[in-house]
Amino acid sequence: MININENYLKLENSYLFSTIAKKIEEYQENNPKTEIIKLGIGDVTLPIVPTVVNAVKTAMDEMGDVDKLMGYGPEQGYDFLRERIAKIDYEKKGINVTLDEIFVSDGSKSDTGNIGDIFSIANTVAITDPIYPVYLDTNIMAGRKIVYMPSTSENNFVPDLPEEKADMIYLCSPNNPTGEVLKKEELKVWVDYALENKSIILFDGAYESFITEDNIPHSIYEIERAKEVAIEFRSFSKTAGFTGLRCAYTVVPKELKAYTKSGKKVSINSLWNRRQTTKFNGVPYIIQKGAEAIYSDKGQKEIKDNISYYLENARIIREGLANAGYTVFGGINAPYIWLKVPDNLGSWEFFDKLLHEKGIVGTPGSGFGPNGEGYFRLTAFASRKNTIEAINRIKS
Amino acid sequence: MININENYLKLENSYLFSTIAKKIEEYQENNPKTEIIKLGIGDVTLPIVPTVVNAVKTAMDEMGDVDKLMGYGPEQGYDFLRERIAKIDYEKKGINVTLDEIFVSDGSKSDTGNIGDIFSIANTVAITDPIYPVYLDTNIMAGRKIVYMPSTSENNFVPDLPEEKADMIYLCSPNNPTGEVLKKEELKVWVDYALENKSIILFDGAYESFITEDNIPHSIYEIERAKEVAIEFRSFSKTAGFTGLRCAYTVVPKELKAYTKSGKKVSINSLWNRRQTTKFNGVPYIIQKGAEAIYSDKGQKEIKDNISYYLENARIIREGLANAGYTVFGGINAPYIWLKVPDNLGSWEFFDKLLHEKGIVGTPGSGFGPNGEGYFRLTAFASRKNTIEAINRIKS
Repeated sequence: MININENYLKLENSYLFSTIAKKIEEYQENNPKTEIIKLGIGDVTLPIVPTVVNAVKTAMDEMGDVDKLMGYGPEQGYDFLRERIAKIDYEKKGINVTLDEIFVSDGSKSDTGNIGDIFSIANTVAITDPIYPVYLDTNIMAGRKIVYMPSTSENNFVPDLPEEKADMIYLCSPNNPTGEVLKKEELKVWVDYALENKSIILFDGAYESFITEDNIPHSIYEIERAKEVAIEFRSFSKTAGFTGLRCAYTVVPKELKAYTKSGKKVSINSLWNRRQTTKFNGVPYIIQKGAEAIYSDKGQKEIKDNISYYLENARIIREGLANAGYTVFGGINAPYIWLKVPDNLGSWEFFDKLLHEKGIVGTPGSGFGPNGEGYFRLTAFASRKNTIEAINRIKS
Repeated sequence: MININENYLKLENSYLFSTIAKKIEEYQENNPKTEIIKLGIGDVTLPIVPTVVNAVKTAMDEMGDVDKLMGYGPEQGYDFLRERIAKIDYEKKGINVTLDEIFVSDGSKSDTGNIGDIFSIANTVAITDPIYPVYLDTNIMAGRKIVYMPSTSENNFVPDLPEEKADMIYLCSPNNPTGEVLKKEELKVWVDYALENKSIILFDGAYESFITEDNIPHSIYEIERAKEVAIEFRSFSKTAGFTGLRCAYTVVPKELKAYTKSGKKVSINSLWNRRQTTKFNGVPYIIQKGAEAIYSDKGQKEIKDNISYYLENARIIREGLANAGYTVFGGINAPYIWLKVPDNLGSWEFFDKLLHEKGIVGTPGSGFGPNGEGYFRLTAFASRKNTIEAINRIKS
């Protein structure tokens, strides 16, 4: 008799975004004239930059040419892209990452979700709360024990070390959903903890390109000895608007070790390579050519202009809300603004109020975990016009 | 202390294709004038057809347009593609598959590899031998018990039912590597077995479009009640040369049930949907637009011309070898020719002989499992000129 993985039955149904969609629909039906402004979604809205569009189209022409067709590629990604990543994203910032430590993939969601494959289900997992739900759900699916680390305004969104020893620790900075960041000395605490406890840090740096302040690490490898204890996830989704093109990469250092039950050291790089070559067949050649184009001088300028546009939206929301008397977090090094819901309202109550009174959609903080209750997420990905209009409505 | 998934240590190192590459390199160095013909690789060589090239490029232009940009798509695939699949691949052939039973993905390698996520590790897995190594390796990684079903010329490549009860059964028809197929009545034996034993069949139909003979099922759902027991994997890799573009789909019928340990029925469709929405973010929009274009009249004609080209290569190899006295299998409904190694040579001995005496590269059958020993795989994916030249060399 075929048995299921019963861990799946422990998952909570994730009705967050479908509930939001339903509420919007209802409201719009009853208020057909209101132009709803959506600041809830984490998806980009600026188009793919011209340099990338051209690179992908040129690569597609190659695919139609018998002499240039690219079939199965290396599962780890083409060297032309891995060389750019190693050079521009790391070497230029004083970090040494070799090509065979870089694994190009179809997204950080896939990688943060699949990375558990190579680790024992007996490991204890520490997850900040609130957080991107994939870390939690994938570890519930695997059946691992999970420890939550509250991350709220009380601790300035810098979670305390877990009381119980954690073997796998997920950190995300700049953070989704709070938009807050870990400073160098704050991140160092975690690296030291991992070194001491032989733990591993799964560091999600998907929003790295939004960092504007000094002393905020862009990579965990800026912390001494982090290559011995950390895997780093990076994505082109927010850096270059690739949410619909699907390309990301993960760095698995060769210094990084895990252990058998009997204490024998094993290379995680080799295990992840075995996982990817067995269960993945690489990112489309044309997408990798598009990602490569980001690293040209012209590409860099174009994507940085887009990031600046979103950051200016974030500033408008952050300052506008602050002026209107709200307590706001994030939005300086991230496209997310995390606000304290006023008047002791719940996250969902505030959602309804904002929709019904102002025609504005955001995301209830409780959707990201119990400690998100009483908070609310707004995103900087709308158009400038709608962003300004939203703030004017809130102020009015 | 971070522990690894120790099942990974049970995997054999897969040196097959790297060993082949090394042998070729050595030979070429010593014989710089010989033009080596490669009939070993399972990758396509004809370019992507014009209809697909144009569709992808047009979609990429949309991505660069602020009004048409497509961001995060549905993890299950866009309806425009799922509608074509349901209509052309199934409805036209008398099979009812609904849109929410179709999951578009980046490849059958990913899907056949990841499908195990939703099943208990306590299930026993039956795998034909020889076989595509992903079925085996991913179940070793999960720690499942594996039962092998020999598939050789002695049983006409129709494996016997396993002696031990199997919960998960991998079948691949047309088969990689043997190129042989299961007839309708032969496949029905498996569906009946699965119904009786509450097993599940994982049916890999990646080579479906190469079927030329009647009475060979293109889909397992041609067998009555198969939707209650089978998941079907299909790929655009061989159908339309998408090995470098990465698109496939998997059908998970809603009738299909698995069980908790206590015997409660659970919908596999829901579990797979939860897996994909949690650990996957969909196939790039532009790739799905390319896949959609295959289903246009022009697209259908173009890809069928390519399949015919490969099938003619297969015929040339099959008949040429038969005329030269070899015992050959496959090559009628598949791009693979599986030949019995003559003179009681081993697979690797024959590999060396063919390379050194004829300058031709194939794949030793033993690379696909112990029962592949004494066999050898040639593929129909080379150019016509090289295919003919290879046969002439073998005959001479």
